[in-house]
Amino acid sequence: MTVTVVGSIAFDAVKTPWGQRDRLLGGSAVHFALSASFLADVRVVGPVGDDFGEAEVDVLRARGVNVDDIEHVPGGKTFFWSGEYEYDLNNRHTHDTQLNVFADFQPKLSEASKDADVLFLGNIQPDLQREVRQQCEGARIVGLDSMNLWIETARDSLIRTIEGVDLLVINDAELRQLTGTPNLVQAAREALGWGPTAVVAKQGEYGSALFSADRFFALPAYPLETVVDPTGAGDSFAGGLFGYLAAHPDEGLTDELLRRAMAYGTALASFNVEEFGTERIQRLTHDEVRDRVAELHAITDWVDVPVELRA
Amino acid sequence: MTVTVVGSIAFDAVKTPWGQRDRLLGGSAVHFALSASFLADVRVVGPVGDDFGEAEVDVLRARGVNVDDIEHVPGGKTFFWSGEYEYDLNNRHTHDTQLNVFADFQPKLSEASKDADVLFLGNIQPDLQREVRQQCEGARIVGLDSMNLWIETARDSLIRTIEGVDLLVINDAELRQLTGTPNLVQAAREALGWGPTAVVAKQGEYGSALFSADRFFALPAYPLETVVDPTGAGDSFAGGLFGYLAAHPDEGLTDELLRRAMAYGTALASFNVEEFGTERIQRLTHDEVRDRVAELHAITDWVDVPVELRA
Repeated sequence: MTVTVVGSIAFDAVKTPWGQRDRLLGGSAVHFALSASFLADVRVVGPVGDDFGEAEVDVLRARGVNVDDIEHVPGGKTFFWSGEYEYDLNNRHTHDTQLNVFADFQPKLSEASKDADVLFLGNIQPDLQREVRQQCEGARIVGLDSMNLWIETARDSLIRTIEGVDLLVINDAELRQLTGTPNLVQAAREALGWGPTAVVAKQGEYGSALFSADRFFALPAYPLETVVDPTGAGDSFAGGLFGYLAAHPDEGLTDELLRRAMAYGTALASFNVEEFGTERIQRLTHDEVRDRVAELHAITDWVDVPVELRA
Repeated sequence: MTVTVVGSIAFDAVKTPWGQRDRLLGGSAVHFALSASFLADVRVVGPVGDDFGEAEVDVLRARGVNVDDIEHVPGGKTFFWSGEYEYDLNNRHTHDTQLNVFADFQPKLSEASKDADVLFLGNIQPDLQREVRQQCEGARIVGLDSMNLWIETARDSLIRTIEGVDLLVINDAELRQLTGTPNLVQAAREALGWGPTAVVAKQGEYGSALFSADRFFALPAYPLETVVDPTGAGDSFAGGLFGYLAAHPDEGLTDELLRRAMAYGTALASFNVEEFGTERIQRLTHDEVRDRVAELHAITDWVDVPVELRA
């Protein structure tokens, strides 16, 4: 089945302790799409400028991603982000954000994109997310990501948008900020009250946590000795997750399915951060994905053996 | 089998968003011992002053903990710590630390304590930890915790002490600090190079991670809607972990055993933080422990179902 993703298509300039790159293919929709493409048909919706050439489009095409709804804005420049990570990679500083063609973006979805089984509303202005959501009335599963900027500047609109989606996927710190609730379990419960079937809190190097009506699940990140560039890890995670959901159209949004979907998201995100930008994912093989999911299972598996308690 | 724990026995004054208490029974050895007592015979070694009365000793006795090696220092005052947690409980501020009888503490272990199968060197000065370790030459498993104070003031001594133990259990931030390595996997590898069979990194609300020669395991914390007082969570975790190891003398320090031991530590730590000080653990039942371990298994369990990969 098909996933449509709406979000940023970008050039990133990234500096990390392991080096720097001035112009990497990036953006939430790109990282999401490349990751999801291992599991489902993917269609990308988003604007680019004159500087976005065939080489960039070919990276998506090479993974079978449909690029018909990438909107070329004549005379425009592609969204640009520049940032730097501290030595421990947990803190990042944005040096520059140039919205460029994104400033006036009005999503126009083709019929094929509207008809997608699964829709992911990447991190863009919540009014735009809601417009897209309305264009895809028939979508079986709708997911949404957001960020501190929209929580601070458009919280009411964001909550209205969340009311119309099935799955909220968001950083844990932003879930706390969005709900004004420091305890993550309470924060997730509040967000579930707005309508979604489930909430997935992304926790960076600690992994991710799944909250649904009466259940909880937590999955660690895959342990890596070297993380070269964390940019796009959350988008790759979401791409694997929603790709897996799209690949299982007959199962409904069950807790068991979501757990397995998170494992694929986790595995794909772990590859994403091993090199700069999309470099690692571009040459990722099926066997590598399978092996990493199997390893992830091995490092989370344990047996509860009864023990005699005392005193 | 028996666990001997050496560490602080304290009175704590704690303020959290849910209230405050001026005089709680606390200290690393106390939290460790109460937790371990659900799984093994426990002996506590540490000094107290005149202000430490029968009521406090009875809390330990009620859980079957042997208190023969609690050393009463006539005219002395018990170790006192006062601190406050911020609203999100992740940051804590120490207002006051009075070493009191701990300032001149020279551990004196009875033959019975020296003969313990398992020894845990709670967070005290590393020279003292090494002295105790030398008194317990026959211990089958020796564990150690430490903290930023000793990393900053006695790092060389601490590393020498770690060289003589089987299991290092330490906060992840302190493992990074100790090794000067921001990546946790690399930091654990460096610490393993000093001699321990395994390293357990405590990650607070995110759970814990186990590193051994060629394996990794991660376990989330049990999700709680209300954490009343995080004080002693790490010590309760270690108590459950080492109590479980002591309860399985025939298994060796295998990865599988350590995983199950971490689950008991995680369950006991989750109860510890539900109320102030030792209040919750004092009335904890066997059924509650068993149920929480089972729940912990349920929230970490997932099945790796093969999926057809694409493109």
